[in-house]
Amino acid sequence: MDAIVYLAPICALLGLLFAGYSFLAVRKEGEGTEVMKKITAAIHHGAMVYLNRQYRAIALFVVVLAIVIAAILPNGVLTAACFVLGAVLSATAGYIGMFTATSANGRTTNAARRGIAEAFRVSFASGSVMGMSVVGLGLFGLSIAFIGLSNFLPGMDEYTIVNILAGFSLGASSIALFARVGGGIFTKAADVGADLVGKVEAGIPEDDPRNPAVIADNVGDNVGDIAGMGADLYESYVGSIIATMLLGASTAAVFFPNVSLMNVILFPVVIAALGIVASIIGSFFVRTDKAESSAIHMAFNKGLLVALALVVVATYFVTNAMLGEYGFGVFVATISGLVAGFLIGQITEYYTSFERKPTLEIAKSCQTGAATNIITGFAKGMESTVFPVIVISIAIWIAFTFSGLYGIAVAAVGMLATLGISLAVDAYGPVADNAGGIAEMSHQDPHVREITDTLDAVGNTTAAIGKGFAIGSAALTALALFSAYAFAISKGGETIVMDILHTPVFIGLLIGAMLPFLFSSMTMMAVGRAAYEIVVEVRRQFKEIKGLMEGKAEPDYESCIAISTHSALKEMVAPGLLAIVAPILVGLVLGKEALGGLLAGSLVSGFMLAITMANAGGAWDNAKKYIEQGHYGGKGSDAHKAGVTGDTVGDPFKDTSGPAINILLKLMSIVAVVFAPLFL
Amino acid sequence: MDAIVYLAPICALLGLLFAGYSFLAVRKEGEGTEVMKKITAAIHHGAMVYLNRQYRAIALFVVVLAIVIAAILPNGVLTAACFVLGAVLSATAGYIGMFTATSANGRTTNAARRGIAEAFRVSFASGSVMGMSVVGLGLFGLSIAFIGLSNFLPGMDEYTIVNILAGFSLGASSIALFARVGGGIFTKAADVGADLVGKVEAGIPEDDPRNPAVIADNVGDNVGDIAGMGADLYESYVGSIIATMLLGASTAAVFFPNVSLMNVILFPVVIAALGIVASIIGSFFVRTDKAESSAIHMAFNKGLLVALALVVVATYFVTNAMLGEYGFGVFVATISGLVAGFLIGQITEYYTSFERKPTLEIAKSCQTGAATNIITGFAKGMESTVFPVIVISIAIWIAFTFSGLYGIAVAAVGMLATLGISLAVDAYGPVADNAGGIAEMSHQDPHVREITDTLDAVGNTTAAIGKGFAIGSAALTALALFSAYAFAISKGGETIVMDILHTPVFIGLLIGAMLPFLFSSMTMMAVGRAAYEIVVEVRRQFKEIKGLMEGKAEPDYESCIAISTHSALKEMVAPGLLAIVAPILVGLVLGKEALGGLLAGSLVSGFMLAITMANAGGAWDNAKKYIEQGHYGGKGSDAHKAGVTGDTVGDPFKDTSGPAINILLKLMSIVAVVFAPLFL
Repeated sequence: MDAIVYLAPICALLGLLFAGYSFLAVRKEGEGTEVMKKITAAIHHGAMVYLNRQYRAIALFVVVLAIVIAAILPNGVLTAACFVLGAVLSATAGYIGMFTATSANGRTTNAARRGIAEAFRVSFASGSVMGMSVVGLGLFGLSIAFIGLSNFLPGMDEYTIVNILAGFSLGASSIALFARVGGGIFTKAADVGADLVGKVEAGIPEDDPRNPAVIADNVGDNVGDIAGMGADLYESYVGSIIATMLLGASTAAVFFPNVSLMNVILFPVVIAALGIVASIIGSFFVRTDKAESSAIHMAFNKGLLVALALVVVATYFVTNAMLGEYGFGVFVATISGLVAGFLIGQITEYYTSFERKPTLEIAKSCQTGAATNIITGFAKGMESTVFPVIVISIAIWIAFTFSGLYGIAVAAVGMLATLGISLAVDAYGPVADNAGGIAEMSHQDPHVREITDTLDAVGNTTAAIGKGFAIGSAALTALALFSAYAFAISKGGETIVMDILHTPVFIGLLIGAMLPFLFSSMTMMAVGRAAYEIVVEVRRQFKEIKGLMEGKAEPDYESCIAISTHSALKEMVAPGLLAIVAPILVGLVLGKEALGGLLAGSLVSGFMLAITMANAGGAWDNAKKYIEQGHYGGKGSDAHKAGVTGDTVGDPFKDTSGPAINILLKLMSIVAVVFAPLFL
Repeated sequence: MDAIVYLAPICALLGLLFAGYSFLAVRKEGEGTEVMKKITAAIHHGAMVYLNRQYRAIALFVVVLAIVIAAILPNGVLTAACFVLGAVLSATAGYIGMFTATSANGRTTNAARRGIAEAFRVSFASGSVMGMSVVGLGLFGLSIAFIGLSNFLPGMDEYTIVNILAGFSLGASSIALFARVGGGIFTKAADVGADLVGKVEAGIPEDDPRNPAVIADNVGDNVGDIAGMGADLYESYVGSIIATMLLGASTAAVFFPNVSLMNVILFPVVIAALGIVASIIGSFFVRTDKAESSAIHMAFNKGLLVALALVVVATYFVTNAMLGEYGFGVFVATISGLVAGFLIGQITEYYTSFERKPTLEIAKSCQTGAATNIITGFAKGMESTVFPVIVISIAIWIAFTFSGLYGIAVAAVGMLATLGISLAVDAYGPVADNAGGIAEMSHQDPHVREITDTLDAVGNTTAAIGKGFAIGSAALTALALFSAYAFAISKGGETIVMDILHTPVFIGLLIGAMLPFLFSSMTMMAVGRAAYEIVVEVRRQFKEIKGLMEGKAEPDYESCIAISTHSALKEMVAPGLLAIVAPILVGLVLGKEALGGLLAGSLVSGFMLAITMANAGGAWDNAKKYIEQGHYGGKGSDAHKAGVTGDTVGDPFKDTSGPAINILLKLMSIVAVVFAPLFL
C-alpha cells in the first residue's frame, strides 16, 4: 500500500478541524436579546426534533437494507458494513450542519446589530461547518474504509475491494433520499401551509410570530436547504469518487498499462484530499466589511477562485506524478469537469436573477395575469436546459476524448473537488434568510433587517448557483456510476454493449425517461397533501387558542413541526421505494442491458426536468421580488398577485421535486452498481 | 411485380370515392339563415385565406428543400420528386378537409334546427371527408410512386426504390410541420387574443360577433384541429408504412428467408389498403337518432369496433397468405400496435374527462386558488405518462419478440390501419364546436345550442382520445423510422450498434432529450407574442371603429386573421429550422451513431413531455368546465377564476407545444433517414 493513501484521511481531518474552528467562531457570538434567544431556541429545538424523528426512521430503513445486502450479495457483510458507515457519516454531517445553522441564525441577527462584517462572518462560518463536515466526513470515511479493507483482507483483489466500497456510496444515497425528498416535502408543506392561512386568510405578515406554522417554516429552511443540500452533495462527492475508483480498477490494465493500478484507483481520492486543503485556504479569503451585496459577492468569488486555482495547479502536478504519460489527459478531464460546474452555476444565475432578461421577461408577463406568468416562466425554464446540456456535452466529450470513461468520472470528481468551500457558500444563504426572519419576529431596528436583507439577497443568488451546481454534479456523478455499472455487469471479460436498437434497452430507456416525471408528480402531490394538514392545524389554532391574534397567547409551534415531520416521513415512502425498486425490478425482469437503458433514460430526461423546474421556480420567485421592489405596480397590484401565483407554483418545483430528481438519478445508479451481481 | 401491389391504389380510390360521397352528404344540407350564411362564409373565407398564405410559404420551402435533395443525395432527383408528391398530396388532403369542415360548420347548425340525428350526420360526414382524404391520398400517392419506380426503373433493386420513396414521407413531414406548428400557433394566438380583450377587458361573452378576433378564433379551431391533426396523422400513416417497407427491404433476406422479398415489402401497404375498406364499412355503422351523448359515443364505438374487427380478421388471413411461416408472428405484432393505440386513447380519456378522478381532483384544487390548480394539473399530467409508457413498452416488446424490428414498425402500421374512421371521429369535434359558435352568433333557439353542445361535449372526449392516439402513433412511427435509419447507415453490411456507453451516442441522447424542451419553449413563447399582436389589434378596433360595441358597425375580422396568419408563419420558422437542422448538424459533427442517440433521446423525452402537456391541458380545460356546471361555486366564483387560469395555461400546452412535439420526433427521424448518405 502506497503511503499516498494516508494523505486522504489526513486532509479530511484537517477539514474537520477547520469545521471545528468555524463552529467555535459561530458559538463565540452572543445569542442576543431574550426574545431572540427564545425564537432561536424554538427553531433549534424544532430542527433537532425533526432530525431525531427522521434518523429513527432512517435507522430502521438502514438496518433492513443492510440485512438484505448482507444476505444476498457476495461479500455482503462487508458491503453492508460500508453501507452503514456511509449512512452514519452522512447523517452525522447533516446533524452537525443543522445543529450549527440553527444556532447561527439568531447569532447572525445579533451580530447584524453591530454591522454587516460581523453578521457575514458568523453566517459564513456556519456554512463552513456544513461544507467542511460534508467533505471531511465523506473523505475520511471512505478512505479509512478502503485502507481497512486493503490491510485486513490481504487476499482480496482491488476490484473486489472497491466494489465493496460501493456500499459506502449507497449509504450516502439512502440518507440523501430521506434528507432531500423528506426535507423537500417538510420545507414546502410548512412554507405553503403557513402562507395560505397566515398571509392569505388571516392577513398577517410573513414571519409573524402569531402564525403557528412560522417556526416550522423556519425549521424547514434549514431542513431543506442545509441538511437536504448537504446530503445531496455528500452523495455526489462520495459517489463520484467511488465511481472513479471502480472505473479505475476495471480499466487500468487496458487503458493505463504502464501505471500502477493503485495510482489509478487512488487518484480521485488524492484530488479530493487536495481539494479540501484548497477549500480551507480559499475560505480565509472570504471576508468583507463593506455593506453592499456586490462586496459580498466579490468576497465569495475571491475565495472560490483561490480554491479553484489551487486545485488546478495541484492537479497538474499530481496527474503527472501519479499517472505518468496519461497524466495530461486525466488533467484535462479533471479541469473540464471543474469548468463545467462553474459554468452551469453561472447559467442558472443568468436564468433566475432579476437583473437578467429571462426573469425580467417573466416579471413583465405578470401584467397580463397569472396564466401568462406561468406560461412564460415554464417556457423559460425549459429553454434554460439548452446551455447546461451544451456545457455538459462538451465537458464529457473532452473528458472522454482525453481519457475515456475514466475521464468522465474524473470530471465529476473535478467538479466537486472544491465542494468544501462551495457548499459553505451555499449553506450560508439559509442562515442569512432565517436571521432576517428572527430580526422581524424580535422587532429589531430596521437597519438590522436591512443588513440581513442584503445578506439574504446574496444568499438567493448563491442558492440559485448552488442548485444548478447540484444538478450538474448529480448528472455527472450518475453518469460516472452508470459507466461503473456497465463494468460491474461485464465481469467475466465480455464487452458490455447497451445497444439502443436492442429492444429491451430501448424499453429501459423509455421507462427510465418516465420515472423522473412520475417521481416529480409524486413529490409534488405529497407537498399538497402535507400543506393541507398544516392548513387545517393552523386554522384550528387560530380558532381555538383565545387571544392568539391579539398577541396575548402563544401558538403551539411544536404541533405544526410534528405534523410536517410526520407528513414528510410518510409521504417519502412511496417515491423512495420507487427509486430503489424500479432499477432492481427492471434488471431482474428485462435484464442487465435494459437496466442500463433505464439509467440512461432517467438521466437525460431527469436532467432536463430538474433544470426546468429549478430554474422556472427560481425565476418566478425573483420575478415576484422584482415586482415587490415597486415595478408594474408593486406590492398589492394585480401584477403582484400574478407574481405570487407563479412563486407558489415554483415552490415545490424548485425546492422539492426539482432537487429530488438529483437523488433519484444517483440512487438508481448506485443501486444498479451494488446489486449488479443479481443481474448476471 | 405481384398483382397484389395494385390492391393499394384501388382501395385508396375507394376511400377517396367515399370521401366524395361524404362531401356530397355535407353539401346536400341547407346553409340556413342569412346570418348563418354570412358567418359561415366569413369562417370559410378566413380559413381559405390562411391556407393559401400557408401553402405559398410551404411551396417556397418545398422547392428549396427539393433542390437541396436533388443536388446532394444519390438518386436525388427521384427522391425530390417523391418528396414533392408527398407534400402536395398532404396539402391537398388538408385543403379538402378544411374546405369541407368550414362549409359544414354552418350546415351542422342548420341541421341541428331539425334535430340531433341530422346535425350528427352532417358533422360526421365532414369528418369522414377528412379521414378518407388523408388515408386515400396518402396510400394512393405512395403506392403509385412505388409502382412507378418499380416499373420504369427495372434495373433498380427494391432497397433503393424504397429509399427513394422515403422522400414521400419527408414531404408529408414538411407539411405536418407547417400545419401543426404554424396551425398550433395560429389557433392559440387567436383564441387567447380574443379572450384576453373580449372576455376579460371588454366583458363581452365568448363567440360574440362584436369581437374582431372571433372569426379568427373559429378559423383557428379548423386550422389546428382539422388541418393540423390531419397532417400530423397523414405523416404518421405514411411514415409508418414507409419505415416498415424500408425495414422489410433491409432485413427480409435474414429474417424472412423463405418469403418473397416483395411480400415483405408490400405487407404494410396491403394492411393499410384493407384498413381503408374496413374504415368505410365501419363508417356505415356510425349513426344514431337519440339525443344523448351516450348514444353518440355508442355510435362511434360501434363503427370503430366493426372496423377494428374487420382489420384483425383480414390481417390474420393476409399474414398467413403473404408471409407463410412468419405470418403468425407478424400478425401478433400488428395486433399489438392496434390494441396499444386503443388503450392509449382510453388512458388519455381517463386523465382528461371530468367524470374521472384526476380531473375532479384538479377541479377540487381550484378552491385553494390558481397556484394549487396549476401544481395539481401539472402533477397529474406528469403522472399520466406512466400507463402509456407501460402500454407502449409491452406492445413493442411483444412486436419485437414475435418479429423483430420489422414487427415494431408493423405495430405502428397496425395502430394506424383504421385511421380512415378514427380520424373521421376526431375531425367531427371541431365542426360540432364551431356549429355551436355559429348558433350563438346567429342567435338560434336555445334548443339548437343544446344539440350542438351535446355534440360538442362528445367532441371534447373524442378530441382527447385523438390527441393521445396521435402521440402514441407518432412515437411508434418515430421508433420505426429510427430503426429504419439504423439500417440506412449500415449499408455495406456492417452491423450498426448504438452503444449508450459510446460517449458520442450518450451526448446525442442528451442533446436529443433537450430538443423537445427547447422546441416546446419556442412554440409556447411564439403563442404569447402572436396573441399579444392580436390583443393590440382588437383593442385598436374597439377604440377606433365607432358603434362597434353597440352592434351598429362591423369589426374588421380579416385583419385579425391576417395577423394570426402572418405571426404563425413567421413564428414557425425558428422551431421548424431547429427540427431540420439539429439532426443533420449532429450527424455531420458527432457522427451517425450520435444522431441515433439524438433520435432516441428526443423520442423518450418528447413522448413524456407531449403526454404531460396534452393531458394537463385537457384536464385543466375540463376542470374549468366542471366548475362551470355549478360545482365549487360555479361561474364567477374564485374557484372558477382559478380554473380559468389553469385553462389558459393549458391552451398552448395541449394545442400548440404538446402536439408540435409529435412533428418534431417524426420529422427529425425522417430527416435522418433521407439524409443518411451524408453521414456515411
